[in-house]
Amino acid sequence: MLDQLLKDYNEQLTRNGVDGRRLAERLTALSEIGKTEAGGCRRIAFSPEEQQAKELVMGWMEEAGLQVTQDGAGNVIGVLHGTSPERSVLSGSHVDSVPDGGHFDGPLGVLAALEVAEAWKTQGIQPVKTYEVIIFTDEEGARFQSGLTGSQAMTGQWEQAAKAALSDTSGKSFESVLSENDLSFQSFREAERDFSTIDAFVEVHIEQGKRLEKEDLPVGIVQGIAGPSWLNVSFQGAAGHAGNTPMNDRRDALIAAGRFVSAVEVLPPKVSGTSVATVGKLEVKPNGVNVIPGEVNLTVDIRDIEEDSRDKLRDAIWLLAEEVAEDRGIDVEIEQVMYVAPVKVKQDMQDRAARALEKAIGRRTYFLPSGAGHDAMMVGRKTDVAMLFTRSQDGISHNPAEWSTLNDCVETVHVLKELLEDLCGIRTEA
Amino acid sequence: MLDQLLKDYNEQLTRNGVDGRRLAERLTALSEIGKTEAGGCRRIAFSPEEQQAKELVMGWMEEAGLQVTQDGAGNVIGVLHGTSPERSVLSGSHVDSVPDGGHFDGPLGVLAALEVAEAWKTQGIQPVKTYEVIIFTDEEGARFQSGLTGSQAMTGQWEQAAKAALSDTSGKSFESVLSENDLSFQSFREAERDFSTIDAFVEVHIEQGKRLEKEDLPVGIVQGIAGPSWLNVSFQGAAGHAGNTPMNDRRDALIAAGRFVSAVEVLPPKVSGTSVATVGKLEVKPNGVNVIPGEVNLTVDIRDIEEDSRDKLRDAIWLLAEEVAEDRGIDVEIEQVMYVAPVKVKQDMQDRAARALEKAIGRRTYFLPSGAGHDAMMVGRKTDVAMLFTRSQDGISHNPAEWSTLNDCVETVHVLKELLEDLCGIRTEA
Repeated sequence: MLDQLLKDYNEQLTRNGVDGRRLAERLTALSEIGKTEAGGCRRIAFSPEEQQAKELVMGWMEEAGLQVTQDGAGNVIGVLHGTSPERSVLSGSHVDSVPDGGHFDGPLGVLAALEVAEAWKTQGIQPVKTYEVIIFTDEEGARFQSGLTGSQAMTGQWEQAAKAALSDTSGKSFESVLSENDLSFQSFREAERDFSTIDAFVEVHIEQGKRLEKEDLPVGIVQGIAGPSWLNVSFQGAAGHAGNTPMNDRRDALIAAGRFVSAVEVLPPKVSGTSVATVGKLEVKPNGVNVIPGEVNLTVDIRDIEEDSRDKLRDAIWLLAEEVAEDRGIDVEIEQVMYVAPVKVKQDMQDRAARALEKAIGRRTYFLPSGAGHDAMMVGRKTDVAMLFTRSQDGISHNPAEWSTLNDCVETVHVLKELLEDLCGIRTEA
Repeated sequence: MLDQLLKDYNEQLTRNGVDGRRLAERLTALSEIGKTEAGGCRRIAFSPEEQQAKELVMGWMEEAGLQVTQDGAGNVIGVLHGTSPERSVLSGSHVDSVPDGGHFDGPLGVLAALEVAEAWKTQGIQPVKTYEVIIFTDEEGARFQSGLTGSQAMTGQWEQAAKAALSDTSGKSFESVLSENDLSFQSFREAERDFSTIDAFVEVHIEQGKRLEKEDLPVGIVQGIAGPSWLNVSFQGAAGHAGNTPMNDRRDALIAAGRFVSAVEVLPPKVSGTSVATVGKLEVKPNGVNVIPGEVNLTVDIRDIEEDSRDKLRDAIWLLAEEVAEDRGIDVEIEQVMYVAPVKVKQDMQDRAARALEKAIGRRTYFLPSGAGHDAMMVGRKTDVAMLFTRSQDGISHNPAEWSTLNDCVETVHVLKELLEDLCGIRTEA
């Protein structure tokens, strides 16, 4: 991986204490932990691999002069005390992965945050506010189908009953897996922090989409993190023999579903430029070649960075399902099975990120929504957040082919450094 | 079952040698062989139950004075020699079932044909042409997913290589199952008959649809048996993250499929009043709530009783799939995986059946297509065929709830008797 990263690296990006080769070496070292046959990454949360990756980074943190601890949720916290240490600014991401994921989703955000601390050390800079590099535990949720675990614990946004009900595919409960990792519900509770002293959290992450690639830009500024609303829609007609039932005597659930799916597509642009709606999962019953579909169950994933417009879109889709069913003379049942409030990045934070981007790399500022959830979504309910997206090749992620060039990664670090210097109270002329 | 059949029976229908009670008793006796917990029927082809049912009927055939044999495909043939025995007329159906089927699909056609022989015996009638009551082996194809086996053998419409490739769910080959039933490919070949001496085949069957129920008629005359054309259609777009991919940058295979499915519905009425088209099976890949569908594979079952109009409909559907794919900027692959030629019932045979119906029961004549395949489809490629449909309650079949009233069954027998007397050269005044 190192050779591939360094191949087209522009050495002029190694400046102001930020070292592209060091970043490449560290991305490569992390990629070796849990490497899969396909060349991807398997660092499931609460596995030895996740802890090994954390410990590797903790070593680097100590070398960079940070004071390192792990909290009761396994989150790693590397502290660089400021000259006025009563207030702090955080940056980081996660090192766990999906079962065969890539090497940038998570690690880039952690190593970018660490690289800023390294750069300050090189430059002899001490921030005014305390700066903390964070590795959140279990962002992906691959083991318990339920992520953002570490950021939930740190922000106190979790319910013990819900966590107690989780079990992994081998049947192990969440609590027993915590215990194997020397954690507990008690330690989880103790991981909650007082965010009144934390002024901001900044997360660097790969885009996982193609917008920056289309714009030919290395870095983008996130406007908000879209919380999903998930609907389960069940169209119920009547099964029947495909040969013996005349066309005008059918109650075909799939025709209703087909009309619904193709009509959903036109609704998001009517509501906002950042909203999306996707029918991703659809199942037909009885699903026989010569049987008229009696039932179709499908899901709709609805997202926007503004809660109002997201809910407006959800209501329009709900109404559409009812209208199609009524028009087709069949039944429909609709249920909202997930509702996560979107987190808007405050205008002030977007403006600061934009100024940092212009100053650090002199490129055009480009604002985009994050369709996927991130730890910044949890933290964003407690304090100001900003997110920087790094260009993803072909928009591929959660896949061994996930890739961002080292140039794009380092450009992002320069923007992050500039932004953190603003937030932590450092004059960049220092 | 007997009590339920006799409950509302109109005893006046027991006339001209046709005995409703006997028919009810025989339907009931057959229903006991392979009866399921749900009250349905499990008489899979080539099972001891199918053979037991055949033997029960063979006993009744002998009592009725028929000369009974089983051919090399296990088909049962009960012969009533005519006064000019060089030409013959056949009637019958099958006694095997789907795994949890009903008690009329198959048995009614066999017992109706036998009831005519019983009636002639009672009335002291010998037909001019030889009359044969037939039980075809394995009409349903439940064991090897490939039916019409006995009628294929008798008409010589089968390929040894195709049969040799079949195996049941336990992995047993078709040939070894034949062997267990004292049959072989050799005996199968020997079951082929010379149809030049067979003037006609008439099959009574339940409708398996709701047309007669809607028309409030006990019996209908089949215009033709719709041969299916099956298409596999694969729409191929690009999977992607449901949150991070803008609506205008998607190649969603399910939206194309949805538009296709809802547009297929309007095509059959443009082609003919008897054609139907059904998307019965549809599968989405990767089928995740938050993943844009990259691929959708679906089937289209297209039927009509006229080959020309059926093929015209198939071509229109094929074109539609291509147009939708092109319009959506995605790929499509289409393959015809089944092509069975429809069998039209000759106008002369339809007219004879209509006259028989009017004469026998004095009801309005109603013509309808058979959407499902039947043994008459195989035989119809070798000699003249006619089919009579008996009203099905709620159109339900292949289900324990399958039901036709005894009155409707007996009315059908009267029509069959009248038609066979015409075809076999008997003056009904005799």
